[in-house]
Amino acid sequence: MPPQSIITLTTDFGLADPYVASMKGVILSLNPEAIIVDLSHAVRPQRVEQGAFLLEAACPYFPPSAIHLAVVDPEVGTGRRAIALRTPSGSFLGPDNGLLSAALPEDTRSHADEAGARVPLPEDVLGVALNNPRYHRQPVSDTFHGRDIFAPAAAHLSLGLPLSDLGDVVSEVFALPPFRARRRPDGALSGRVVHIDLFGNLVTNVRREDLASRRITVEIGERQIEGLQRSYAEKPGLTALAGSSGFLEIALTGSSAAAELAVDIGEPVLVRSG
Amino acid sequence: MPPQSIITLTTDFGLADPYVASMKGVILSLNPEAIIVDLSHAVRPQRVEQGAFLLEAACPYFPPSAIHLAVVDPEVGTGRRAIALRTPSGSFLGPDNGLLSAALPEDTRSHADEAGARVPLPEDVLGVALNNPRYHRQPVSDTFHGRDIFAPAAAHLSLGLPLSDLGDVVSEVFALPPFRARRRPDGALSGRVVHIDLFGNLVTNVRREDLASRRITVEIGERQIEGLQRSYAEKPGLTALAGSSGFLEIALTGSSAAAELAVDIGEPVLVRSG
Amino acid sequence: MPPQSIITLTTDFGLADPYVASMKGVILSLNPEAIIVDLSHAVRPQRVEQGAFLLEAACPYFPPSAIHLAVVDPEVGTGRRAIALRTPSGSFLGPDNGLLSAALPEDTRSHADEAGARVPLPEDVLGVALNNPRYHRQPVSDTFHGRDIFAPAAAHLSLGLPLSDLGDVVSEVFALPPFRARRRPDGALSGRVVHIDLFGNLVTNVRREDLASRRITVEIGERQIEGLQRSYAEKPGLTALAGSSGFLEIALTGSSAAAELAVDIGEPVLVRSG
Repeated sequence: MPPQSIITLTTDFGLADPYVASMKGVILSLNPEAIIVDLSHAVRPQRVEQGAFLLEAACPYFPPSAIHLAVVDPEVGTGRRAIALRTPSGSFLGPDNGLLSAALPEDTRSHADEAGARVPLPEDVLGVALNNPRYHRQPVSDTFHGRDIFAPAAAHLSLGLPLSDLGDVVSEVFALPPFRARRRPDGALSGRVVHIDLFGNLVTNVRREDLASRRITVEIGERQIEGLQRSYAEKPGLTALAGSSGFLEIALTGSSAAAELAVDIGEPVLVRSG
Repeated sequence: MPPQSIITLTTDFGLADPYVASMKGVILSLNPEAIIVDLSHAVRPQRVEQGAFLLEAACPYFPPSAIHLAVVDPEVGTGRRAIALRTPSGSFLGPDNGLLSAALPEDTRSHADEAGARVPLPEDVLGVALNNPRYHRQPVSDTFHGRDIFAPAAAHLSLGLPLSDLGDVVSEVFALPPFRARRRPDGALSGRVVHIDLFGNLVTNVRREDLASRRITVEIGERQIEGLQRSYAEKPGLTALAGSSGFLEIALTGSSAAAELAVDIGEPVLVRSG
Repeated sequence: MPPQSIITLTTDFGLADPYVASMKGVILSLNPEAIIVDLSHAVRPQRVEQGAFLLEAACPYFPPSAIHLAVVDPEVGTGRRAIALRTPSGSFLGPDNGLLSAALPEDTRSHADEAGARVPLPEDVLGVALNNPRYHRQPVSDTFHGRDIFAPAAAHLSLGLPLSDLGDVVSEVFALPPFRARRRPDGALSGRVVHIDLFGNLVTNVRREDLASRRITVEIGERQIEGLQRSYAEKPGLTALAGSSGFLEIALTGSSAAAELAVDIGEPVLVRSG
């Protein structure tokens, strides 16, 4: 009996179309014992950074044996590489466009500027390009590598295939910088909104651990929010709190902060102390 | 090998965000054999009663060995208790805010008025507060007990942990009244819309078994609907029928009754006989 | 231990309501080892042909042992039959309204005109009407055969029950014509849009294999699109390409072709060569 392995899926495909089901069919045809978990299929179309954030937020709750397959892939069918990374915290497969940045430690990613950059893989991460056609589903579509390259690679990994059999070893991959606000010379943290959740809570790249105390002022749009709360129900109106993923969130009790502030992903956020 | 158990999830988290996937990661890290079923993640934000209705509608189709984890939790991080209930029809975990009312028999719930009330647990239901930190995921977030308290508790239960190990026994919980229309002195049934499904069908709390015959008149908004039909396709226009969960529904063949009537959850419904 | 089998679900029920979860509960109560995969629950309400297309697009990626349960059923509760088909490519259960057309080979379906027709089953397909009450969930609802007839039938099949135990053998079923554009006397292909995906890509019934070369002109609405591209990123503006399911798609790089063209499912498409 083949080993049971968790394979998570993160895409911008949605669940209405046959795409995700086709990937699951390919995986289960190769490994009927695979445990497939939808991480999210609601990444906004082709927003690589948002997909990277969702992976960073959810992957820590899976065991290191898990295989994380992600496809947000505006350049599918062009020259961009398909890669797999084996790391101490899990295995990751996806396009080499920064989507898999969560697989890499922060000091590796700190070499990258805001638009991302090629970075060398650290010693404890093994990377390969998924260029061994033996593990592709044939014929490989020009538009759906999720089904024809990533899904079979994930299934073969879950069956115990050595990562290095999937293709040539790579020493560098494209990575996004860490999700972390920049500290300005005056001590304020300059960050931005990286995700908006279903409740309309604005999730920023400002980390709880970078906040010296609960006495902060958050500036977003034309608004100022005083103090860091512990929970959504603590006070009415716009609220700043450290969300469950360790990042500063801006919420509106009983309603949507995104609608109230009329802001979108990318909106600048400034946090002052005291 | 750990035992296989079904764990259903009901939340208002949606499937776009990393929250549900994080809960699944926590569960599968503890019990890779758990069979996780999404009951619904589309409860409207913080609408506890709607969540309770969805549990009541779907749980009867699962075996009594199933574990139902539900999180619609506007008061997370405040003093509200987290509880688990073992009942003859299944095990239930969630905030002690009425969401788990489906776990309790109707006569127990009939003590509660419309806003809900604390009710004593019947003899065949064992309840505990989830206050044993040994089975919490540490550190416990102030905003995400689904991941840090409920998910590990459900996973440990699925592995065979006795319910009473999860915390102190409780003898009372907060419950909503039964989903059942009130009979007025004139014999008419006075109910309301408790759920609106994807088709725009209005699901009410009027029970089929409370309807003496098919010769009824349903009043909703300014409209009257004559007769109880057997199926959606039986006649054009607004239709009243006994839906698949045993409750009166108001439907519009080929379209949305909710849109046609411009009504929302909570809308009063009156049913007269003859 | 009961055998592991894949059961896919395709419905127009959405995932917000308790309907899909109820079906999963019924299946898992009978066969806890079943591997349930959501193919899509976002078929537009009662659009049988769109459901048939999604099945045709995704089923080829599942093993022949898979059981495909589909419910898009505007006539539930009326006289329409419930059927099951065992074919070389998988088993299919659903209403006898054309939804299961993907189960049948193209030459069988070519007997049907655009609105569909009753066709004889080919020799290698066994069909039954699901009229053996022994395998129904009692009482059978007038409005939810997905839960009371199809789900238990699929579960029993997954446990190894012979298909013929589920009811009387049938020799004819209702089928839709193949998803294939018609060739006009002047050589142009006359097709239509059969699905619109999340990205707003228009998926047509024009097959790649019917295109003689990449030098084509696609006419849709008032617009003309020149040439067949290989991938979405190849050129800006409206793009025609052979999508991953083998059908001609019309896409708008970085945006929605459906919004740009303001067209819906059913929109005519004309493809000229050279």
